[in-house]
Amino acid sequence: MFSVTVRDRFMIAHSFRGEMFGPAQALHGATYVVDCEFRRPELDANGLVVDIAAASDLLAEVVGAFNMRNLDELPEFEGQNTTTEFMAQAVHARIAARVAEGALGGGNAGLAGLKVTLAESDVAWAAFDGPLPASGA
Amino acid sequence: MFSVTVRDRFMIAHSFRGEMFGPAQALHGATYVVDCEFRRPELDANGLVVDIAAASDLLAEVVGAFNMRNLDELPEFEGQNTTTEFMAQAVHARIAARVAEGALGGGNAGLAGLKVTLAESDVAWAAFDGPLPASGA
Amino acid sequence: MFSVTVRDRFMIAHSFRGEMFGPAQALHGATYVVDCEFRRPELDANGLVVDIAAASDLLAEVVGAFNMRNLDELPEFEGQNTTTEFMAQAVHARIAARVAEGALGGGNAGLAGLKVTLAESDVAWAAFDGPLPASGA
Amino acid sequence: MFSVTVRDRFMIAHSFRGEMFGPAQALHGATYVVDCEFRRPELDANGLVVDIAAASDLLAEVVGAFNMRNLDELPEFEGQNTTTEFMAQAVHARIAARVAEGALGGGNAGLAGLKVTLAESDVAWAAFDGPLPASGA
Amino acid sequence: MFSVTVRDRFMIAHSFRGEMFGPAQALHGATYVVDCEFRRPELDANGLVVDIAAASDLLAEVVGAFNMRNLDELPEFEGQNTTTEFMAQAVHARIAARVAEGALGGGNAGLAGLKVTLAESDVAWAAFDGPLPASGA
Amino acid sequence: MFSVTVRDRFMIAHSFRGEMFGPAQALHGATYVVDCEFRRPELDANGLVVDIAAASDLLAEVVGAFNMRNLDELPEFEGQNTTTEFMAQAVHARIAARVAEGALGGGNAGLAGLKVTLAESDVAWAAFDGPLPASGA
Repeated sequence: MFSVTVRDRFMIAHSFRGEMFGPAQALHGATYVVDCEFRRPELDANGLVVDIAAASDLLAEVVGAFNMRNLDELPEFEGQNTTTEFMAQAVHARIAARVAEGALGGGNAGLAGLKVTLAESDVAWAAFDGPLPASGA
Repeated sequence: MFSVTVRDRFMIAHSFRGEMFGPAQALHGATYVVDCEFRRPELDANGLVVDIAAASDLLAEVVGAFNMRNLDELPEFEGQNTTTEFMAQAVHARIAARVAEGALGGGNAGLAGLKVTLAESDVAWAAFDGPLPASGA
Repeated sequence: MFSVTVRDRFMIAHSFRGEMFGPAQALHGATYVVDCEFRRPELDANGLVVDIAAASDLLAEVVGAFNMRNLDELPEFEGQNTTTEFMAQAVHARIAARVAEGALGGGNAGLAGLKVTLAESDVAWAAFDGPLPASGA
Repeated sequence: MFSVTVRDRFMIAHSFRGEMFGPAQALHGATYVVDCEFRRPELDANGLVVDIAAASDLLAEVVGAFNMRNLDELPEFEGQNTTTEFMAQAVHARIAARVAEGALGGGNAGLAGLKVTLAESDVAWAAFDGPLPASGA
Repeated sequence: MFSVTVRDRFMIAHSFRGEMFGPAQALHGATYVVDCEFRRPELDANGLVVDIAAASDLLAEVVGAFNMRNLDELPEFEGQNTTTEFMAQAVHARIAARVAEGALGGGNAGLAGLKVTLAESDVAWAAFDGPLPASGA
Repeated sequence: MFSVTVRDRFMIAHSFRGEMFGPAQALHGATYVVDCEFRRPELDANGLVVDIAAASDLLAEVVGAFNMRNLDELPEFEGQNTTTEFMAQAVHARIAARVAEGALGGGNAGLAGLKVTLAESDVAWAAFDGPLPASGA
């Protein structure tokens, strides 16, 4: 299996609900360093899993929508704890949807899987890894 | 699949038996930077794989028992070469046992897998990856 | 010149005032990975610049006071843009004051300088570097 | 599953063919930081996946053959775009062949898999992961 | 003293002249990860050394002119060995000139020094550190 | 000022004397990742601070003498606490002496300063920085 990974980052505020979160129930924030891994069983005719420039642009587009935001105020996350692992899945879903729309060229273009890792610090990170469903494009 | 990883570290002395180890047959030591990855197919009701603070505390407890020790003197490792890969499994086993005891709350709490990586330097590391068996809790 | 550096981290929310800040005028947040470098021209009788465990504890105490907070709500930062470079100085001042109080043992204990670096991401960081004034202790 | 990973690096020039590569069609270059992960389901009698020193030597041998070269001029890559993902597979194939020849001792010596990751920068990397076929040695 | 550092990267081909360079006399290449540190004795009225977004844009502009190039073909480097340390100074000079032109706002805007570090790999890097001369702007 | 830095590593056992060291009074160990920075005000005729390959070889030679050793047993460290900061100076002294002997070519070859940093973990490191005295060579 081949993979290509690109890195970007975004900075947000949020708070968590639930006693178990202790001090994280207060409004605080995080920088998330995001690694987005695209997987493909075979290289394409150009010798690529995905064009790194196109993958970087797509990742920047997706995390740019969250950057400098208070996640507590985003309607799509209402009632959710926007934990690091939850946000990994949120980024994964948005990348996958854009790939299905052809953002990286022609449907899923042979891509088989996607892993999104969000590092909240140098000592803690979370990831969501799942298939890229075939698209009709 | 979701994952959450936390990082800690411990510093030990040890020596290896076997001619193939060359100079590492002498007493020497290492800093191990430990990454402990917990996996769970679904998030819990709080949006978590595992509480990062609880996971960090558990990792600190487990590696704290080895920190500042000469592994050659620990009865549980008698007759063993405490290689980096062996120690990855040793940390894995201790974390898994504590998880089964409910150290992270309620049995295995839905956790499916655990990967423990020990970096012995910036250019060499080892890991052990295995399931977290269901517990009765 | 000798130095010892210890690392910790804290997670905050804040917002900036001033049109030049663009989207950072909105409430957002950051993880700051903090490197605290203590400098001393000569080692002490134990062969130390500073006890690493004591230095780590002091850094944890100082950044713990900011962790999981909305900096916009802290009275000591009222009317200030809590930029990364400003916060580097804020951490520096608090460490220096605690050192002067003897937090690392006996006055400044020979320490000559202190540099505090705050990384807001993998691609941007800021620092404040200044002397540790002699204390009367 | 156990794994051991060793790191090395090589520096090359190359160019790509195809309009989609844009400015990368021109002759340029890269430093590749290479992580080579060996996997083994059980440790050997010495408590090893693979001897780290032997693995490091093997990796150095393989990437040394590419270091300080213009990949456009190597006959084995004629007509190929030597993308990061392609080169990950190229390193994988050469390591696997040398392992099969007994470079790490006795056939594949129980090794089950191999992952080769090439980082072309701090924000982009590619990998090839595949089995190590059993050898007759 | 305050500082702010931003990171970017560029990928080039080049060759060196002189027997001492051994295999590096052949055409090869490198990825340079560039850290650009701006220093200022006092923060400005906004609490800044320099606007991180503006500094990142300036660094991207300067290193973008070298990215995906064969340095052997650039007229400004004719007859020069474009070593890592030489390129650190080349980036420094170009950043300094643009700062003097007001690229970061109003002359040098209080900036006192600039350090440019180019990492050619995970185990080797070079830097040039020098003052930012006052400009007439 | 120009600088070139090369990285290597060594693994040792040792113990400390003095109640303040707490558990570190017991025999334990460390991996030290070593960064060795050479400084020179002007580049030489080849465009170099120092030949990176020669500097890497020299660093490997010096730290190789400590690698896989119990520092408590080395006569040159008798009665010394081989703390991270002490070892930074020990490496510095040995590099400086070899440079003075011409290990990097012709006396100090214009080198003005040397900084040696030893990281004992991902969260703690120490350094010694001092001039390279002119040699008669």
